[in-house]
Amino acid sequence: MNGGLFITFEGIDGSGKSTQARLLADALGSDTLLTREPGGSPGAEEIRALLLQGDPDRWSAETEILLFTAARRDHLEKTILPALKAHKNVISDRFADSTRIYQGATRGDLRTMVDNLHIQMIGREPDLTFIVDMNPDIALTRGLARNSGEDRFEDMGLEFQRRLRTGFLALADEFSDRCVVIDGHRPIESVAADILSVAKARI
Amino acid sequence: MNGGLFITFEGIDGSGKSTQARLLADALGSDTLLTREPGGSPGAEEIRALLLQGDPDRWSAETEILLFTAARRDHLEKTILPALKAHKNVISDRFADSTRIYQGATRGDLRTMVDNLHIQMIGREPDLTFIVDMNPDIALTRGLARNSGEDRFEDMGLEFQRRLRTGFLALADEFSDRCVVIDGHRPIESVAADILSVAKARI
Repeated sequence: MNGGLFITFEGIDGSGKSTQARLLADALGSDTLLTREPGGSPGAEEIRALLLQGDPDRWSAETEILLFTAARRDHLEKTILPALKAHKNVISDRFADSTRIYQGATRGDLRTMVDNLHIQMIGREPDLTFIVDMNPDIALTRGLARNSGEDRFEDMGLEFQRRLRTGFLALADEFSDRCVVIDGHRPIESVAADILSVAKARI
Repeated sequence: MNGGLFITFEGIDGSGKSTQARLLADALGSDTLLTREPGGSPGAEEIRALLLQGDPDRWSAETEILLFTAARRDHLEKTILPALKAHKNVISDRFADSTRIYQGATRGDLRTMVDNLHIQMIGREPDLTFIVDMNPDIALTRGLARNSGEDRFEDMGLEFQRRLRTGFLALADEFSDRCVVIDGHRPIESVAADILSVAKARI
């Protein structure tokens, strides 16, 4: 085996992707590292606090893209690449696709900026991406119910979440080689079984 | 007048540039905004804390460049451009040239990366840049004597400071249209008088 498999979970807030990421990590066992973005390394977790707390208008979209890219670079260097090199499978709850959609597609036409920064500073794409699809009316209720104190994006409202959903589904078409759309409205166990089946086929 | 003048001060740690930036701001009077990098806006000051505290090896050079660029973008949007538009002169203690030298020239061959990020995310250059030149043996003693708790870069040692000095002098040649090298070894008042004279001629 030439390094582990890099698997990411993407979707709108409250879609259940974090639960599914954890369930897949549990099912794959001890050779699996579960991580998340923004964050996933000590430095990136500090950048996460700057990004997710405070006013929704705290940062411009451009500054936000730079901070997400900085956190991702640290996460990749310190956590993801060393684990893959040690032949672990890495599961990340969010990765670059979230920046493509949250900053690139919904806050003005910044997708080119996001892509240029990604190519220059990150480079690496996941081997497999699960896009957990859900109706934002249902997902938003779940998300707000978490009350995590990290709800800057969830505060942006239902219309924003609808644009996110459309963006993630378009992304699945754009990167159809690595993206698999999973219907997240079904019972957690059914969703998890589908995901495990796809993941096992690729490992 | 079509907006204020954007003046920056650059140089190695302990060169006296911060003192000179303050003296010029005092001399130019109430239409002048004095600011600094990293920092200069509430968001950028929070990024500054991540950059200047902790281990010298805390961030890779690449992550550091992204964080400096994020802080600069916020500083530019929230502090520099609004002041220039209000016809104030803006004096910044460090700006993009510091990233060109600290990250671009002394920590591997990353100047192209720094320049690409600058062109894409910042764009703006100063109208006038004072490079306060000083022998690093003298400057390092002054810098460490400050004991500010923000000495990640000063901790990097004398050889590093020598490379910085060489880098700043080369930069003055590269951007000779806006850069003026000032001999910082002389008495503070003499240095300040030279700087004020050059600045007044440009305003």
